[in-house]
Parts: sequence; C-alpha cells; structure tokens
Amino acid sequence: MERHEIKRTDVNELGEFGLIDHLTVDTDVKRSSTLKSIGDDAAVLKNQNEVTVVSTDMLVEGIHFDLMYTPLKHLGYKAIVVNLSDICAMNAIPSQVTVSLAISNRYSVEALEELYEGINLACKMYNVDLVGGDTTSVNKGMVISVTAIGQAKADDIVYRSGARVGDIICVTGDLGSAYLGLQILEREKQIYKESPEIQPDLGELDHIVGRQLKPEARMDSVTHMAKVGLKPTSMIDISDGLASELFHICKQSNVGAYVEEAKISIHPQAEEQAIAFGINPITCALNGGEDYELLFTVSPDDLEKVKYMPDVFLIGEIVPSGDGITLHTTSGNVHPLKSQGWNHFDEDELDD
Amino acid sequence: MERHEIKRTDVNELGEFGLIDHLTVDTDVKRSSTLKSIGDDAAVLKNQNEVTVVSTDMLVEGIHFDLMYTPLKHLGYKAIVVNLSDICAMNAIPSQVTVSLAISNRYSVEALEELYEGINLACKMYNVDLVGGDTTSVNKGMVISVTAIGQAKADDIVYRSGARVGDIICVTGDLGSAYLGLQILEREKQIYKESPEIQPDLGELDHIVGRQLKPEARMDSVTHMAKVGLKPTSMIDISDGLASELFHICKQSNVGAYVEEAKISIHPQAEEQAIAFGINPITCALNGGEDYELLFTVSPDDLEKVKYMPDVFLIGEIVPSGDGITLHTTSGNVHPLKSQGWNHFDEDELDD
Repeated sequence: MERHEIKRTDVNELGEFGLIDHLTVDTDVKRSSTLKSIGDDAAVLKNQNEVTVVSTDMLVEGIHFDLMYTPLKHLGYKAIVVNLSDICAMNAIPSQVTVSLAISNRYSVEALEELYEGINLACKMYNVDLVGGDTTSVNKGMVISVTAIGQAKADDIVYRSGARVGDIICVTGDLGSAYLGLQILEREKQIYKESPEIQPDLGELDHIVGRQLKPEARMDSVTHMAKVGLKPTSMIDISDGLASELFHICKQSNVGAYVEEAKISIHPQAEEQAIAFGINPITCALNGGEDYELLFTVSPDDLEKVKYMPDVFLIGEIVPSGDGITLHTTSGNVHPLKSQGWNHFDEDELDD
Repeated sequence: MERHEIKRTDVNELGEFGLIDHLTVDTDVKRSSTLKSIGDDAAVLKNQNEVTVVSTDMLVEGIHFDLMYTPLKHLGYKAIVVNLSDICAMNAIPSQVTVSLAISNRYSVEALEELYEGINLACKMYNVDLVGGDTTSVNKGMVISVTAIGQAKADDIVYRSGARVGDIICVTGDLGSAYLGLQILEREKQIYKESPEIQPDLGELDHIVGRQLKPEARMDSVTHMAKVGLKPTSMIDISDGLASELFHICKQSNVGAYVEEAKISIHPQAEEQAIAFGINPITCALNGGEDYELLFTVSPDDLEKVKYMPDVFLIGEIVPSGDGITLHTTSGNVHPLKSQGWNHFDEDELDD
C-alpha cells in the first residue's frame, strides 16, 4: 500500500542514474571523514581512528516488513537504524551507510522519495553520511540492503566473546514492546481487510507501536559509557529477543548466565497488551524481537559506573558454563532459558 | 535450474544462524587488517592506510542474471568481482567484502554451497576477506548484495572528475565480448527451450562466453600502475559500456572527448559473432556492458609509462567540453557518441 499518491512518477521516466541522483540530491556530507560520497565508483572515507567497523543487513518485503502498515518513511528510518544498532553493539560510533534498493515497478518515484525521507532523517539523527548505494529493479516487492560503517579506537571494541564469570548482565530500555507493537499492527491489518470502513484505534498504544515502526539504536548508551569510562566485557544488540542474544554471548564467551525475571523492564502498555493477547509478558521480553536495545556485561568492578547509567537495568549475572542459562522467576522458580529467536526461514511468511 | 542436485538439503534444516555458519565455515582470514570477521555484530578492520574505499552493488535474479545459463559458482564469483572492479576503479586495492543474500526456498543448501564456492574462489583469487553478511528468505528468486571495501593512500585515489584537456584516453583489454557472450547464452537458452535434446555447442566461443560468465576485475592494471608510478587523472570501470562510462567521466570532469574507432580492441570471436548477429562490432564495444575493464585518462606527460603497459589501448584524447564527445570512425567520419548504457528499468526483464 502506497501513501500520498497524489502524484505518481514512473521510475522509467528518470532511468537508473536519474533515479539515484534524484533520491540522493539532498544527501549532504556531515562527517569530515567522508572525503567522497555518492557519485563515483566508490565512496572514500578517511581513517580518523584506529579501526573501521562494518555491518550489513537485508530487509525483504513480506518477510521483514509489511507495507500494509509500515509507512515508507518509517521503513527507511528503520532500515538505517537496525544497522547502526549493530555498530553500537561493537561499542563503536557509526559514521557512514550505503543503501541498495531493489524495487518492482509498482513503486513510484514519490513512494521512493518517502522511503529516502526516512533514510535521510535517520542519517541526520545519528550524524551519519549516506555514501553510496545501488538502485535496481526486481520482479516483485522490495529488498533493502544497508551496510553501516563505524569507527572506534581498537581498544574500545567490545565483542560477544568477552563475558566472564561474575560479570553483571545489563540491558538498556524495556523489552517486548516491538513484538507487541507488531501484533497490534497485524490485528489492525486483519480488521481492515475484513471491514475496511473501521478506523484503527491506536491511541493508547503509541509506545509499543512506535517501538515497532520507529526503533532507535542505543548510540546514547554507547556515548554515555565512553563518557564515564565504562567498557563492557561483552555486548550484542537485541534484534532477535533477549534469550537468543544471551545465548550468543554465552556460547561465544563459553559461560552460563542467570537472569532475574523481576529485573527485566517491561513497559505497562506491553504488559497490558501481552495479557490481552493471552501471552505471558516475560515471554515477549525474552523472545520478541526488534527491540534493538543493548545487552551487555560489565565487570563487578564497574558496578558503580553502570548502576547510575540512565535507562539501564541490571538483570543477572554470568556464571560458569556448567550452570547453564537460567531464568529465576518472580514466583521463585528456576527455569532453563530457551533460545527461540526469530527464525525467518521457519516463520509463516506475511501475506500481502 | 539448479545443478548437481544429487543431495538436496532444505535450508529450514539448518535455520538462519546455522545456514550462515555452514556457508562461511571455510572463510579464512587472509588480511592482517581483518581483526574480526564473521561472527559478531560487525566486522572490525584495522586502518593500515590513509583512506577506506567502499562500494556496493545488488544483483537480482531475472534482471542481472539468469540461472538457466549461469552456474551458481560463476554467479558467486561474478558477484564479488563486479564489486572489486569498483574499488579498482578508484585506484585502490580491495581488502574485504560483505555478502547479503535473499533466497527463496527453492534453493537447497547444496545450491548455496556452490554459490559460496564461487564467492570464496573470488576472495582467494583477489586476496580479499569475506567479513560479514546476512542471509534471509524472499518469496521468489534470489537477490545478492555485495559491499566491497578497499584501502589506498589518500593521494592515490582517482576520481571520475580529474580528466583534463589533452589527456590520453586509455582502456584495458577488449570490449564487447561480455555482451556477445550474453547473446550466445540467450540464443542457446531459446534453442534449449524449443528443443531440449540439442546439446549447446560453445566450443569456439570460450572467450566471449567466459567474459560474460566469469569476468575479472583489473586489479593487475592497478597494481602495475602503482609499480611504474603512473596515476591516472580519472578512472571508471566499464560496467555499462564504453560510451556510457566516457559520458560519466566527461560530465564529471566537464570536458569532451574524441575516440578513434580503430584503436578500440575487439576480440576476433566478438567481431565474428557480432557480424553473425547482424550487429556492428563497434556498437557492441561502445554499448555492450559487463566487460569490467578500466577506462582511464592519463596526462600526456605519462605517455611513455602508459604506452608499454600490458593490455592497455590508447583510444583517444580529452578535448574541451564544447567539442562534445565524438567517435572518429575507420571510414574517416566523425559521429557524436551516444550514451546508451544498460538501463535495467527500461530493459525487458529476462523471463524465467
């Protein structure tokens, strides 16, 4: 579903080169490290710091997004943010992105302008330059591939593999909201399909719907940690759910973990909606994806530094690998944690 | 059409994480600048030189490739090479790549292994590390997005915009072959569809078919130029045809150009097949795409250096922009050159 289709310019009118020029005309260079942006065979970046960090992600219509309820501007914003989140998870600061786009001819130039509005907004918010890309056609749907580049001092990089027994497990922000936002949007889509005359009522659900449609990368947390001299021992961004990410850290660090259910932050809207859907809120927090918060571990020596960090929750502790990965529930039980994650190959594909 | 389908493992058996692990298990790190490859939120690259060069390209089944006649191993090889070609065109040396893949469930794990065989082979041939990527599903077909990263000293970078009046226009290798290779493959596909029992006979066409299926990036030319101390004034790789690329250089350098038809190298196989297809061979050289040779300009002061460069042809001269872009034909005529290029939005899509 495309929006605001007052004017519809066919992409053929601009041609491939014309389209790229048109969509990137407002792309200003913000970073002094961007020596050459779009317009040559490759972008040229000055190496100001010791290491460059690179991450790439692909978003596919019908798998990762449904244009029935995702405005194109939000989609563009999100496509950038999810990649910046990966750079942040390395304890690095994102500096440049490239965007490649495969689109079917059902998208007008105006629709792509909306997409790029979101892309440009995200670049502006995070002070990142769009330095390259490719635009091509595809028989059906849309595929967006983003590569993000960041910079850090070599000693500042944080891997998934550095968690040690005794480390404190920390999470930024609240979890499960993005998943419940998606459930709400899916429900409204069904209602719309059955009764198009009914207007969606999302008044009280702004937080969870917003978390799904317009996620943010926790660059603020990375910046804060640098300011207070806190370097996590391990870090990962939560794209597939807390449980799945904790498994990655434990596997790569060769440790176990225990997590206290009561310490995990769940937004009241998320809690309420989970119950309304008949799901345990903690299940959404553990296995719902797309929150893009940071999961990290810190040495107990850094307790004072992390304790006063804004919007950070201390949810558990790293234990020997033999102790496994467990959840201590509010009712006093201990459950082995399962990594469900989001497996896009198993998932039923969204219909369109 | 998938090949060697003796064993067919469904991708669901491995899951998304399992699939990435499986396909990248042979990915060894060759570059000392690759501090961290696949397996974390992002790759970490050491900045050994002064600048980093980044380029990205997307290949879409049915638009950029037809699996009816493109073996998956060749496709993987080509997907890497076309991106390395962009890095070379900046006068930089490629060092790392990321590969993102969207695939429909009609591809088996074995088919993807073949694709990665080609990807790994290209990485090996060009001494480049595969440092990241994403694997996801798509409803139909295949989309491959590659980002290539290279390194250079800041002063060595060559842009499209540096051509000056009086500069000599040079091209590596022969042109038009990849386009004619494609025509041969398309013809054989039609014959196969009409009479599947007829075996294709490509015996005498190894050069042009090879140029289409297994192109190479001219890293050898970039290395040679560095060795003899030759820095072009402008450079671009020929992906859309000589005419189109020359237009890019002239537009960005604000100059004109004249090209001598007789100086353009056309392989005998290409010449013969062009005539058989009823096309002027020079048209194939000017407007056929995918040769991935380098088009560059050098100062007349560097004539001696470029004259003895292996596999380089001096095809013309940069002139004032008012003189336009012209072709001096073998018959003594002067024609204004037209930039047709390959416009994938205008092209009839390959049927599958």
